[in-house]
Amino acid sequence: MPEMRRDPVTGQTVIIATDRAMRPESFTSSTGENIITELLPEHVDNCPFCYGNESMTPPETAAWRNGGEADASGWEVRVVPNKYPVLNENDAFTPPVQQGGLFQGMQGYGVHEVIIETPVHNRHPGDISVSHMRTVIESYHGRFISLLQNKLLHTVIIFRNYKKEAGASVEHPHTQLVALPFIPLKIREEIEGAHRFYFEESRCPYCLMIEEDRGKRIICNNEDFVAIVPFAARLPFETWIMPRVHNSSFGAIQEEKYESLSRIITEVMQRISACLDDPPYNYYIHSAPYPDGSLPYYHWHIEICPRLVTAAGFEMGSGMHINVAVPEDAARFLREVKVKGNVYA
Amino acid sequence: MPEMRRDPVTGQTVIIATDRAMRPESFTSSTGENIITELLPEHVDNCPFCYGNESMTPPETAAWRNGGEADASGWEVRVVPNKYPVLNENDAFTPPVQQGGLFQGMQGYGVHEVIIETPVHNRHPGDISVSHMRTVIESYHGRFISLLQNKLLHTVIIFRNYKKEAGASVEHPHTQLVALPFIPLKIREEIEGAHRFYFEESRCPYCLMIEEDRGKRIICNNEDFVAIVPFAARLPFETWIMPRVHNSSFGAIQEEKYESLSRIITEVMQRISACLDDPPYNYYIHSAPYPDGSLPYYHWHIEICPRLVTAAGFEMGSGMHINVAVPEDAARFLREVKVKGNVYA
Repeated sequence: MPEMRRDPVTGQTVIIATDRAMRPESFTSSTGENIITELLPEHVDNCPFCYGNESMTPPETAAWRNGGEADASGWEVRVVPNKYPVLNENDAFTPPVQQGGLFQGMQGYGVHEVIIETPVHNRHPGDISVSHMRTVIESYHGRFISLLQNKLLHTVIIFRNYKKEAGASVEHPHTQLVALPFIPLKIREEIEGAHRFYFEESRCPYCLMIEEDRGKRIICNNEDFVAIVPFAARLPFETWIMPRVHNSSFGAIQEEKYESLSRIITEVMQRISACLDDPPYNYYIHSAPYPDGSLPYYHWHIEICPRLVTAAGFEMGSGMHINVAVPEDAARFLREVKVKGNVYA
Repeated sequence: MPEMRRDPVTGQTVIIATDRAMRPESFTSSTGENIITELLPEHVDNCPFCYGNESMTPPETAAWRNGGEADASGWEVRVVPNKYPVLNENDAFTPPVQQGGLFQGMQGYGVHEVIIETPVHNRHPGDISVSHMRTVIESYHGRFISLLQNKLLHTVIIFRNYKKEAGASVEHPHTQLVALPFIPLKIREEIEGAHRFYFEESRCPYCLMIEEDRGKRIICNNEDFVAIVPFAARLPFETWIMPRVHNSSFGAIQEEKYESLSRIITEVMQRISACLDDPPYNYYIHSAPYPDGSLPYYHWHIEICPRLVTAAGFEMGSGMHINVAVPEDAARFLREVKVKGNVYA
């Protein structure tokens, strides 16, 4: 019998199509066109993100290096402006063209950067060493903090697209970042929804999710983080990584936790890859858009969305999702799948 | 220079990537895998929606016929329960499992029907006669009104998926309908957003859109309806069809207007097909979820969403869309494209 579940934060209702319940194998055929990333070469001569090709990108904004000069080799993680930015950093910010009424627009001011995660062409999260992943996290955190010091920027969205089906146009492992001069409605609604929950229950809903789960939807955890399939997951095998100790902003993550975050991301990506045959996915960080982490009602987290289904007219018209994988089943499959464990150094 | 535009109803901000502005041809390659619908046969022996195969579906709920008995041939449009419903009509509606707190769920009560638009396997809107399309509209309206008489049902979502890339799993021309025991958040937010606009401006925002467009984003119109690309279109070539005279509910459409609605849908579908090489699309009806049309602030309409781009991590994380086709350009392309005009009888 199908079930409808309500997300305690956003209030969105999801249809869990239990009658159509499927095993992980039934999803992997939809990713059949996939390039097997491991079979790609380690270096591609004309890839602008590969080692030695640093001159093919705009000059770097930041880099984490073992040595070498800016825009030369020696880097582990390199941040460059996006060559085809969706927003323009050089525009002076202008107020809305028209304050009230129907047609409100403004210039597209903002920052769009690419975080090149590794000089190697074919090593994605789950497949790079935990210590390298730690540097990737450090770069996420560094850019997040640094961009929010600009008083014109109010939100930093850090997101990763893996494979063409998830919107990636470049094969080389990279994350993107868009900094916006306002807080997008969706982020606002999530934070306001958490606040509403807090008013009623005097608890952070995300802390409660961890506390009340009783092992039903938990995939794995370590000393600092926990990975779960949310109760009202919109997508099959949707996975959230949350800090166990309450903290509203990714900007407030302590340096000591870079390593444990890297460990859980690595483990989760290995589990998703093993369970669903290296599927396309997106992940993004949801955080209060302030560098300090002191809001009592919001809880920063990473949402990982495997791209296994196509949204259709019902989803677009109603805003509701139909999830054909029962969250408790998805969590169990991800928890029980055998992973290779060790990764390339 | 990129531009950010705010939807006057939902408050959603869209990035219009003017720097990436593209001609319609640049989108059609993404639909290259397409089956050319016109080359499909008119009849498929094992298609449950084809003429003569009426026994392959559950018994019909309603039909518009030239003759013949229920579940026999002679129909023009036939409505049957979905064989694989996402919600279950037979469940008694039960209140939420838990009233407050974190984990709120309820049984998946609702209705899921298929409207088989024609007995012919390969004739879609734009490619069927206006008089046949009129019967399709009549069936939409009939089911909308009829289902809302059930006091347990509060919303009827009528939606159409065309081609696999838009989520269609069955090739035969059909529309689907899901009736829900509540009003989904997205519909509520759209209606509330329109109400907010009305409080401030004392006008229906949709009426104003038509009035203030000055020909910039209008594709075509007739005596009763107008087709536009909205100012803050989320998707390239997104098109809305709206009644010219204010009316908040599709349930209140007058019988005399079935024909003019069929004419504008036919024309718009022909323009989209000619301009974008028969692309995958979804359309759905947005209506106040009450059969009478007297709300002064909301305005029912049809949203047509060609599926030309893949949403990626930025869209999923921020809820914002990046539209790579400037709405005014998209409207001009759709307005100026040459269409064949006459359609199969």
